[in-house]
Amino acid sequence: MRNLTWLFAAACLLFTNAIFAAPARCDESALEHKFDASIRPGDLREWMKLLAAEPNQVGSPHNRANAERILAWFKQWGWDAHIETLQVLYPTPLSETLELLGPPRPFRATLQEPPIPGDTSAAATEPALPAYVAYQSDGDVSAPLVYVNYGMQDDYKTLQRLGVSVKGRIVIARYGSGWRGLKPKLAQEHGAIGCIIYSDPSEDGYSVDETYPNGPMRPPRGIQRGSVADMTLYPGDPATPQVSTAQTARRFEIAQAKTIVKIPVLPISYADARVFMQSLGGRAVPRTWRGTLPITYHVGPSAVPVHLAVRSDWSPKPIYNVIAMLKGARWPEQWVMRGNHHDAWVFGASDPMSGQVALLAEARALGALAAQGWRPKRTIVYASWDAEEPGLLGSTQWAQTHAGELRKKAILYVNSDSNARGFLYVAGSHDFQHLVNQVAADVIDPETGVSIGRRLRAKLRVEALEPGAKEHIKEMARAAADPNRDVPIEALGSGSDFSVFLDHLGIPALDVTFADEGDSAGVYHSRYDTFEHHSRFVDPGFVYDAMLARTAGRIVLRAADSDLPVQRVQDFAEAVSGYLAEVRKLASDRREEVETQAALLRDRAFQLAADPTKTHGLPTPLERGPHVEFASLEDAVDRLKRSAKAYDEALARHGPALDAARLARLQALMLDIDQTLAPAAGLPGRPWYRNLIYAPGRFTGYGAKTLPGVREAIEEQRWADANRYARLTADALNAYCERLDQAIALLTGAPSAPVHASAL
Amino acid sequence: MRNLTWLFAAACLLFTNAIFAAPARCDESALEHKFDASIRPGDLREWMKLLAAEPNQVGSPHNRANAERILAWFKQWGWDAHIETLQVLYPTPLSETLELLGPPRPFRATLQEPPIPGDTSAAATEPALPAYVAYQSDGDVSAPLVYVNYGMQDDYKTLQRLGVSVKGRIVIARYGSGWRGLKPKLAQEHGAIGCIIYSDPSEDGYSVDETYPNGPMRPPRGIQRGSVADMTLYPGDPATPQVSTAQTARRFEIAQAKTIVKIPVLPISYADARVFMQSLGGRAVPRTWRGTLPITYHVGPSAVPVHLAVRSDWSPKPIYNVIAMLKGARWPEQWVMRGNHHDAWVFGASDPMSGQVALLAEARALGALAAQGWRPKRTIVYASWDAEEPGLLGSTQWAQTHAGELRKKAILYVNSDSNARGFLYVAGSHDFQHLVNQVAADVIDPETGVSIGRRLRAKLRVEALEPGAKEHIKEMARAAADPNRDVPIEALGSGSDFSVFLDHLGIPALDVTFADEGDSAGVYHSRYDTFEHHSRFVDPGFVYDAMLARTAGRIVLRAADSDLPVQRVQDFAEAVSGYLAEVRKLASDRREEVETQAALLRDRAFQLAADPTKTHGLPTPLERGPHVEFASLEDAVDRLKRSAKAYDEALARHGPALDAARLARLQALMLDIDQTLAPAAGLPGRPWYRNLIYAPGRFTGYGAKTLPGVREAIEEQRWADANRYARLTADALNAYCERLDQAIALLTGAPSAPVHASAL
Repeated sequence: MRNLTWLFAAACLLFTNAIFAAPARCDESALEHKFDASIRPGDLREWMKLLAAEPNQVGSPHNRANAERILAWFKQWGWDAHIETLQVLYPTPLSETLELLGPPRPFRATLQEPPIPGDTSAAATEPALPAYVAYQSDGDVSAPLVYVNYGMQDDYKTLQRLGVSVKGRIVIARYGSGWRGLKPKLAQEHGAIGCIIYSDPSEDGYSVDETYPNGPMRPPRGIQRGSVADMTLYPGDPATPQVSTAQTARRFEIAQAKTIVKIPVLPISYADARVFMQSLGGRAVPRTWRGTLPITYHVGPSAVPVHLAVRSDWSPKPIYNVIAMLKGARWPEQWVMRGNHHDAWVFGASDPMSGQVALLAEARALGALAAQGWRPKRTIVYASWDAEEPGLLGSTQWAQTHAGELRKKAILYVNSDSNARGFLYVAGSHDFQHLVNQVAADVIDPETGVSIGRRLRAKLRVEALEPGAKEHIKEMARAAADPNRDVPIEALGSGSDFSVFLDHLGIPALDVTFADEGDSAGVYHSRYDTFEHHSRFVDPGFVYDAMLARTAGRIVLRAADSDLPVQRVQDFAEAVSGYLAEVRKLASDRREEVETQAALLRDRAFQLAADPTKTHGLPTPLERGPHVEFASLEDAVDRLKRSAKAYDEALARHGPALDAARLARLQALMLDIDQTLAPAAGLPGRPWYRNLIYAPGRFTGYGAKTLPGVREAIEEQRWADANRYARLTADALNAYCERLDQAIALLTGAPSAPVHASAL
Repeated sequence: MRNLTWLFAAACLLFTNAIFAAPARCDESALEHKFDASIRPGDLREWMKLLAAEPNQVGSPHNRANAERILAWFKQWGWDAHIETLQVLYPTPLSETLELLGPPRPFRATLQEPPIPGDTSAAATEPALPAYVAYQSDGDVSAPLVYVNYGMQDDYKTLQRLGVSVKGRIVIARYGSGWRGLKPKLAQEHGAIGCIIYSDPSEDGYSVDETYPNGPMRPPRGIQRGSVADMTLYPGDPATPQVSTAQTARRFEIAQAKTIVKIPVLPISYADARVFMQSLGGRAVPRTWRGTLPITYHVGPSAVPVHLAVRSDWSPKPIYNVIAMLKGARWPEQWVMRGNHHDAWVFGASDPMSGQVALLAEARALGALAAQGWRPKRTIVYASWDAEEPGLLGSTQWAQTHAGELRKKAILYVNSDSNARGFLYVAGSHDFQHLVNQVAADVIDPETGVSIGRRLRAKLRVEALEPGAKEHIKEMARAAADPNRDVPIEALGSGSDFSVFLDHLGIPALDVTFADEGDSAGVYHSRYDTFEHHSRFVDPGFVYDAMLARTAGRIVLRAADSDLPVQRVQDFAEAVSGYLAEVRKLASDRREEVETQAALLRDRAFQLAADPTKTHGLPTPLERGPHVEFASLEDAVDRLKRSAKAYDEALARHGPALDAARLARLQALMLDIDQTLAPAAGLPGRPWYRNLIYAPGRFTGYGAKTLPGVREAIEEQRWADANRYARLTADALNAYCERLDQAIALLTGAPSAPVHASAL
């Protein structure tokens, strides 16, 4: 027995070479082992089977039943839980028509996903929503069709060069490349009167792997539903922007809701799309526009018109957010939040139930620890959100309602959504990057027996060997190859419930998932995202859904129980410094691009290079812009790097010895430090987005734009905005640094001079 | 009238700012206008219709009739012409079988290209060869099938990582990426017992554009024939390597012929291929391995075996090279050569008749000039080659037969082959780059009214704007944007009749074509490469086939009539300097790659990154190699740059004033200077290839490898070869420089000291 005791002590000494929360590591390790023991894949399997048994769209009976079921579980597991109900604008289709008005023969799109024998899609008794996208506008239009590839900004530039206009026409875009909602938005901006979006087999159909039920990928009649509300302006209820509760706010007229696209839109399957694509005339598409339907893709227009009509029920629908708390023993006024939505487009086994059952497993395990007498030092708040799918309505409306409290209390929001067998991917606030790496180093991957962190490092290094690997991947691989460096986490854009916390309130957020080996992309937002599909192709045995619970649960546990602040701010400083370098390069590349294009226009190069037997057109001349005033931002980033290094070192050296009063003051300084990065001004033209470091791109949707005020201004030739936001971003970083400098003074006992120093 | 005369004089002054052949420019311009006037698209059309009316494979009656027809034309146009006949080893298939031995049901490949109504493919009366590849080995094998993507080296590395072996199996490869003949060669080296090659619709079928007869691309049953003789070892008759005449040389046994692949091989259509591809099991292929058949591509192996059997008639067949001469008036012992083959796989309208009719148009125009009293200063030799398709047999055997004379007399060989509407592309010896640019500046593009040079510059600049444009394209665009710089020409590998001249004899060569707007890729080597296809989709009106005649004809005319040598050697020096930089980078990247891979293997990264539910394997460890001794090559390149600059300047300053005796000595020095680059040693393992600057890659086939002795040694970890060929290449460049230094001394009247200076 003695030998074993000695071994355990040695192991703890090894663990404590990590400088953060070091004194707690042995207790922590024991606690986490107990936590793990409560997480049983078989339970996750049963919960998913129950939750994904019937359609779960907003307003459906089963979605409401799920909320009540989840509430009951939380209560049963010892949490203080309740449901917050709201009424939101949520249209559902009453009638839909999409047809090609022949010749050679008229064709009416089926718009249906036939049931698959043996699958929930055949067994369910409640009605599913038909193929549709939320927050399109009802309409009835007929016009020739034009293919716009992914329907993104660059595609319209190409279309201009191809000499084809979408004005007065209906566009057909394939899914992929950027967020769904940008496709009708850009189509409308270019004068189109309707929009069809289809799933090309090259993206998630037979080209990738066999189709369901033979394999994981999208079958010919599978349809991707989704929201097309302009989430890049603001998420949440389109009819009640920036107000705290749907019940009390004056409702906009639907016509005034800025995030509702003004043209009718329908999503279709590739079985249907093939007929419409074959109707297109005009030149064959450029190489990068080709999909893998067995036809020649043409740009269009079609000789015969397409008829598109949609009519919806625009009445309000109820949504149910389940909120559960486990009160902190020492600092109850500090919250660690964790969330995952429970609404789905149809059954939603992978999206969102795979993440939801992980969250439930964590909740039960935490409840079990509490039942054994443990209490977290901070309050843990778990949320099962409703109405994420139509546009993050549940989380957004809830967080806006509770904004004041959240700003004071929330130290971190940990999100998940879909999950699959594979590798750990975390994105989010970079001051929590080290915490993520510490957790990743301590969770063992069941397929390989090494830590999930080590496995991810292996993956990144192998990926970087692929021919044509991007510089970003190579940089990740260099970090991954060095055991003394952390694996960088990616920046967050939008696309799940973290948005209101990070983008609007400035509260640090992490989004956690496993991915890459299992694949739910082929059933994404379709009727085939079922328990059977998830069990067979996405996470057989529910092993990685349980891994998500172990990983996200550990992040929550460590953030809730650490005495010292868990941020390592040098990681944030390094990330911001890299972003600034990117933005400077963007400005410089942009100037070069303008000059190159001007010379080509002057020399008539576009005309001379064009094939005169085909339609073609000239690009819009780029505008020559001034240099951007980067100096204040450069100074702020330099300061950030210095302050961050000083803070991290001071925390490591003096943190463990702080008395309770100083620890409380330190916590107060660091709890809401990230909110300094999200001042009230907001981003140009979309003030709901306040975070000046991270935002979803105006023209990427889910994809992140870092230093967005400056970066997007340069991309979009808004030179006054570029200078203004360079300054505003510098101010925000200086405010962040002032907090750090106060914390350094507190930790080192130095005179408080730096505390009141103005920027620089 | 006076004004017009003045304008013409001014135009001539403008032209003469080019330093080469300047005194002759006004006469030249008048001569070239006369030359142009004889080139009439309607004639080219009629000739093609005649030449491509029946199948023209080696040994066919129509191919022989064409040779005699071409001979008669040359004679009619005043040329001294004859046919040189040879017997060569040229197998033709007697029987072919390719079948999938079921279940679900046995399938026998059709191996047929059905006729298309209204097309020569339906109208011809002579039999066409069936689908086959020349110089495969007869055999009868049955085995499971494995998909190997393009069947190139990197694909076998990927296959190893996917944990799939081809040993004892039959492989199926898609056309594309590298030369056809490498596919069975590499399959055989990896242990495969048979090879199928198919045309994927992503490469040249419906994905690119509509299929013939609705559009230019390959129809479902179209088949690409071709040669699979290992041309990277040596081209020409496989049975008589490196001997001068097929008639007199002892014939190898077929089994001993090193360039004949040892396994049976068949090419198939995508209609047939789909069934075989669908039979494959195993994991779905990686993204870059996907084609656009409407199925999931799997790696294999297939559950049921494939049966492949081929039997051929290996008897010798006659070939007919037509050789025509127009004797030089002043320097008859200096030859400017021009060639294009006349044999085809079937009708060969685009390949080779589009180039053949251009060559004929030039020959008639030159004959017409001669009939009016003009004689070229140098002898012009036109060749209409036979048996290019099976492996450059006609040109190779002829040039080997006449090697001694060619080494003494040939100053340049100008090649063409297929041609299409579009942009001028020239590849070849860089000392002739400036001549090409001068000609390109003087030929007017009929679609745009600007010179073909200016149009190409526009094209390159616009291409460089494409997202993801390669650095090579961007560098080309930078040159194209600067009117004071020439557009770089590409290096030549193999794939047409220039090979024996450039690669074996060291005679400078240029390959000239128009391409990009018309497209014959979809009928390449198929029964559908017909007069109707060419007229409709490749070059309607035969406008660009006539442009080829005007362009290649001008190159021939200027090279034949210039008093001074036409080379500008700084262009060559610049190209070689760039190649050396590439090779040094290759060596350095290679060392980094070795270290990276070693670290990944040490850390078990490949295992950890692999999906344990799928087959996978480890890469072969790369061998750590020594640094390569580049110093002598660096010195030689430095010297080359100095000598080239001094020579070009001396030629411009003193050349025009040379007396006849010194001019003759200068010409003698420069006539065969490029042959110093092709010493007798030859490349490692393939001594037929002597040129140390340009060669077809051992693992690219048609694609060029520059500084091949060193570059390929590094790529293939042959470190002793790398050092040896760095030295040999340096010696060759020094020998080239010694010639230059002698020429400089001659031009400047300086003491002849540098002439005898040894290297450096």
